[in-house]
Amino acid sequence: MLIHSSSQLLTLAGGPQRGHALGSLGIIEKGAVLVRDEKILAVGTTDELKAAYPDEPTLDAGGCVVMPGFVDPHTHLIWAGDRANEFEMKMGGMAYLDILAAGGGIISTVKATRTASLEMLIAQTRPRILRMFAHGTTTAEAKTGYGLQTATELRLLKALLALDDESPLDLAITFLGAHAIAPEYKENPQGYVDEVSNTMLPMLKSWWETHAPRLPLPFVDVFCENKAFDLAQSRQILTKAKELGFPLKIHADEFDNLGGASLAAELGAASADHLVKTSDADILALAKSDTVAVSLPCTPFGLAECQYTPAKKIIEADAFLALATDCNPGTTWNESMQFVIALACRAMKLTPAQAIAASTINSAHAIRRADSIGSIEAGKDADILILSVPDYRQLGYRYGTNLVKQVIKRGRVYSVDMGYYRTA
Amino acid sequence: MLIHSSSQLLTLAGGPQRGHALGSLGIIEKGAVLVRDEKILAVGTTDELKAAYPDEPTLDAGGCVVMPGFVDPHTHLIWAGDRANEFEMKMGGMAYLDILAAGGGIISTVKATRTASLEMLIAQTRPRILRMFAHGTTTAEAKTGYGLQTATELRLLKALLALDDESPLDLAITFLGAHAIAPEYKENPQGYVDEVSNTMLPMLKSWWETHAPRLPLPFVDVFCENKAFDLAQSRQILTKAKELGFPLKIHADEFDNLGGASLAAELGAASADHLVKTSDADILALAKSDTVAVSLPCTPFGLAECQYTPAKKIIEADAFLALATDCNPGTTWNESMQFVIALACRAMKLTPAQAIAASTINSAHAIRRADSIGSIEAGKDADILILSVPDYRQLGYRYGTNLVKQVIKRGRVYSVDMGYYRTA
Repeated sequence: MLIHSSSQLLTLAGGPQRGHALGSLGIIEKGAVLVRDEKILAVGTTDELKAAYPDEPTLDAGGCVVMPGFVDPHTHLIWAGDRANEFEMKMGGMAYLDILAAGGGIISTVKATRTASLEMLIAQTRPRILRMFAHGTTTAEAKTGYGLQTATELRLLKALLALDDESPLDLAITFLGAHAIAPEYKENPQGYVDEVSNTMLPMLKSWWETHAPRLPLPFVDVFCENKAFDLAQSRQILTKAKELGFPLKIHADEFDNLGGASLAAELGAASADHLVKTSDADILALAKSDTVAVSLPCTPFGLAECQYTPAKKIIEADAFLALATDCNPGTTWNESMQFVIALACRAMKLTPAQAIAASTINSAHAIRRADSIGSIEAGKDADILILSVPDYRQLGYRYGTNLVKQVIKRGRVYSVDMGYYRTA
Repeated sequence: MLIHSSSQLLTLAGGPQRGHALGSLGIIEKGAVLVRDEKILAVGTTDELKAAYPDEPTLDAGGCVVMPGFVDPHTHLIWAGDRANEFEMKMGGMAYLDILAAGGGIISTVKATRTASLEMLIAQTRPRILRMFAHGTTTAEAKTGYGLQTATELRLLKALLALDDESPLDLAITFLGAHAIAPEYKENPQGYVDEVSNTMLPMLKSWWETHAPRLPLPFVDVFCENKAFDLAQSRQILTKAKELGFPLKIHADEFDNLGGASLAAELGAASADHLVKTSDADILALAKSDTVAVSLPCTPFGLAECQYTPAKKIIEADAFLALATDCNPGTTWNESMQFVIALACRAMKLTPAQAIAASTINSAHAIRRADSIGSIEAGKDADILILSVPDYRQLGYRYGTNLVKQVIKRGRVYSVDMGYYRTA
């Protein structure tokens, strides 16, 4: 199949983009992509590819932008229940501690998730995956972490594997047993750290090798913040995970600067995420490493806070910057990477081109899949979007609605309906 | 047709909501609405209405929230071209005056609009109306104002009348010839004020009586700001419009406090809109009047600015507060009232209930249609939404995607596809 456009084809070719290289879209005007089976076979101008493959069936994108599918490298998309009532209390002016006392906060989601069956977890997560895909996300990272006990964490993994199997979207799975101190260990947090390190991680490894033998090991992630895991505890868990061969991620500097980003760089983590209160030294450590700085602007937006990731400093320091939704029930329930782009432009003053690169090739690098996804290049998976707009800069400029018209995942074409039809 | 839900039916019954009354949703648990032809005939619990109308065909909303359609009382939805390049320059750090020098700003849209044919204007505006409707807006105000000369302004009116006719959504049309000083009058702004007052408005009246004899007169609106129309000029135009029998609106206090809101209250305008730099005296004047304070939070958001309408003060003062998109090509291209609600909660600390009332019954009052739309009450138009969520508080809590599942406009049912389907 030859997909061709009379507008811009954004290739994002050339690998992950460090520092000021961010925003290199590799635009081919009137570009075309040759897709065979699940892969991209050739990329060029429409004229070139039509001449080279005259008998190929075509998909005419008309005057619409063609670009790689979005890669969302940080989501907590599997949970049970919701916290809409907590949001209302918060907007009504109730203090956080009072909300906790009223049964709010992460532990309320943990309770709902622990009591949900595998089938319920899959059923409640499926529509979120559908929304992500309909908004152009062709690969998403997905974390466990609302179990905080072995049985539930494994049920979450099982559900994620099933959802990865059934969905057109690909999932990159992360084990986040260290999302919060489990309520059972409230008086003995180090006990939970030891449980994660010494019991859960080894068990996870053998479980994974039995249940998902053909997949690479999942990421292991830690929430490194005050009232969660301190730097020493984060180091203990991540070091053990590294010894066992797991690739690493970290939540750092959402509320406090504990040094988690530097730890991530030191241990060779794939990414350090949130990065709001990040110090200059941390940014320098990231810049000297291959660890991607993942900014989650929807989190402060969702919480109605004003401080965002110092994205310009990260670019200036020559680090890799990526964007993600952080979709979760507590701070930001938004599935759309298009909104992340629009917000990143405004809140962190990225250009649309920078935000697009941070949502495709760089976010692919944040889940260590930049060799197979994140750009339109020969040999990569045919994960491609056709937008309903004639210029890439409409991403960012426009917001609040879905600008994706068609999603192509591994060569299969899905139409996204933004419209309506009369039924009665 | 009997629409019934096992979840919440939000009626918003009881008329426009002043001050702290804002947020009275009039919830009926397991509610139902009886719709006959285009109107609402009865409202009650499902049990009551099923008993009273046992043979009525039903539309089962399941566990989904049922509520009135959104009324968007402030949009500039008709224009030609776009300003995506200007957005990129702005995010890249270019100063506003340099953008103007590079051909940006409102005058670039005026140029594109003046050269667009009636057919082009209709074709470019149609997809925006479709997006609005698919996101639950069943009635929208729509302003002219990118013509700034009689011929183009009349072409815009003609296009809006045609779009009103062809669309399921209803339009409430506003004449905004006084959107900016026309470029021809750059050196003689008062000359343009006189032209609008003495030539355009009388002509508009006779034109309307010929072209839309069955419709009420459109609103007349003025952009009362420095570098646009000062208070005296705004008064001149609005007073003339009032003499001719037009209902009034005003743009006030987006950038500067010139007293436009008090002028609106004095003249009995239907609404005063923007209201960011509004003084306490202006708020008091609004509170003593029937003029609705329309907040447009997407405008500062779109411009990446931090100051929003003092919504809490407006509520405290006992005025009417409404919300609108302000959808336009320069500052905020967003068609979704759902996003306005989510943003209003965060940026102005409204509760979801307050933001919903400000987007239905109060926004209906801002276009003086609260007698026929904006709530689910017997005798009103059957403009009804079925959301894909089980609790109204998910509006606000969730954002970035479309939570509307079905739109019922004057009794006709439209399904909104958020999903995708494989086509190849």
